[in-house]
Amino acid sequence: MREMAQWQAPDTDFEARVLESFKRQPFMQTLGVELQRIEPGYCEMKLPYDEGLTQQHGFFHAGVMATLADNSAGYASFSLMQPTSAPLSVEFKINLLSPGQGEGLIAKSKVIKNGRTLKICQSEIFNEKDGEESLCAIAVVSLMEMQNRSDRKS
Amino acid sequence: MREMAQWQAPDTDFEARVLESFKRQPFMQTLGVELQRIEPGYCEMKLPYDEGLTQQHGFFHAGVMATLADNSAGYASFSLMQPTSAPLSVEFKINLLSPGQGEGLIAKSKVIKNGRTLKICQSEIFNEKDGEESLCAIAVVSLMEMQNRSDRKS
Amino acid sequence: MREMAQWQAPDTDFEARVLESFKRQPFMQTLGVELQRIEPGYCEMKLPYDEGLTQQHGFFHAGVMATLADNSAGYASFSLMQPTSAPLSVEFKINLLSPGQGEGLIAKSKVIKNGRTLKICQSEIFNEKDGEESLCAIAVVSLMEMQNRSDRKS
Amino acid sequence: MREMAQWQAPDTDFEARVLESFKRQPFMQTLGVELQRIEPGYCEMKLPYDEGLTQQHGFFHAGVMATLADNSAGYASFSLMQPTSAPLSVEFKINLLSPGQGEGLIAKSKVIKNGRTLKICQSEIFNEKDGEESLCAIAVVSLMEMQNRSDRKS
Repeated sequence: MREMAQWQAPDTDFEARVLESFKRQPFMQTLGVELQRIEPGYCEMKLPYDEGLTQQHGFFHAGVMATLADNSAGYASFSLMQPTSAPLSVEFKINLLSPGQGEGLIAKSKVIKNGRTLKICQSEIFNEKDGEESLCAIAVVSLMEMQNRSDRKS
Repeated sequence: MREMAQWQAPDTDFEARVLESFKRQPFMQTLGVELQRIEPGYCEMKLPYDEGLTQQHGFFHAGVMATLADNSAGYASFSLMQPTSAPLSVEFKINLLSPGQGEGLIAKSKVIKNGRTLKICQSEIFNEKDGEESLCAIAVVSLMEMQNRSDRKS
Repeated sequence: MREMAQWQAPDTDFEARVLESFKRQPFMQTLGVELQRIEPGYCEMKLPYDEGLTQQHGFFHAGVMATLADNSAGYASFSLMQPTSAPLSVEFKINLLSPGQGEGLIAKSKVIKNGRTLKICQSEIFNEKDGEESLCAIAVVSLMEMQNRSDRKS
Repeated sequence: MREMAQWQAPDTDFEARVLESFKRQPFMQTLGVELQRIEPGYCEMKLPYDEGLTQQHGFFHAGVMATLADNSAGYASFSLMQPTSAPLSVEFKINLLSPGQGEGLIAKSKVIKNGRTLKICQSEIFNEKDGEESLCAIAVVSLMEMQNRSDRKS
């Protein structure tokens, strides 16, 4: 992943806004995802291992890894949006490099292009085991900044 | 999606093999996914709406749609594999065309390239509402046929 | 590729506008690409074989196939844009299914999502040989409609 | 892009093999691409501006940027292959972040997963202007190592 660009959040309250939005995502609770760190254009999430998240070999399901890659990118980009905007994933691509296993997964996402309409993020997913992280997937995620659109249910 | 190629399953028992493997995926049960149809090189899945699968706007989370796109492609390709092989998703790309909503999601996946090592699938995700289906996402999934590899936990 | 949606071009002069824009793309002339057909949301291009377009095995270079996939998608989407807009490719993904060979390549692109800002296209690339077409690559291309932006050099 | 892994080339003659293969790609000469640097798992290419490589706004055509992203990834991966193998691009995805312009393009590709069958690369494309480089595209490329396959025309 590229060195982190030094983005400026247009909304000084971005952290509270991200945390509050994250709590309103029921699927994150279904999976057990924890939001670990949010900075302008950067987001980190963690997902402890649970058998209910696995596929037939006992590894984290690829869909779980994709969910983390997408969601951490979503909040990395949301941190750079106007407080009156909502993020919308328009597409992403993930490469699964090695099985998702260990004590949990860690997702790290960075905004690499902060366009007015489109924000492009790179996400990396790591296995965590015995305090060590090893890369297991990379993704690129394109998000749209939906202006004047509430981030809540209509 | 392309007209369906007429693939031949090398293993006449492919249907039982797919169903049995699907049951060994805990994450499918966590989500509530149902395997609806399996044919040589084709797979269809259904996922009824549940609030626990949604994001902050009340739509199906993009990760849920990605999971369906990946998993239905996995079994479409698995149906064409040798009985001694296991499928492995190596990468996929999804375009989210409209919000995932309605009574449920339907995933339809077809193998479009049946290589010895790599199988390429197209997946389409539909919203189901009042008996009508409307396209909400498309994906392309690359899977590797892991030869002489058990589909079970080691 | 999906059945063709019945798009309406907002500009009745779309065909002339596409042809004229295509002629202003020097790279198309460098390659020798011919624009074969343009309809609302649909575009077809042809590229005769030339040794100068090949890689080390004598097949069409993957970059040539990608160029066709991107460019035909660009004009499929341009046909649906306002006459005051210009198309911009924001991302694409291509799967190379079999070698690009034969007498030439044919690209067929369709708009599958006609958003106000983003247009999503599927492209298929075919080998042409002895009057027969065989699929050799598929791509998904996302294009932005740049409003009030000239399609010409500034 | 990730910090560079320290790959070992299995063939000490990898540099000569890459250079010799590159020269057998007619399309690279058509475009005017120069191979600048090759290391185990890493490749750098340069393409000076030429009007014949542009689209209607006078920028490098997206297909040119895609070609560079693909080709530099191909040789980054080829450097890690057995001398009896040939590289084959199976898929790639590119995000076009800003217009390709300036005096030329520079492509830098790194292998991030060196599998026996599949090698995954990240490519970055830069504009070069007044001795400064600015990122204009990122790509992820999957390549297959075709074992016991000549890298030459059959």
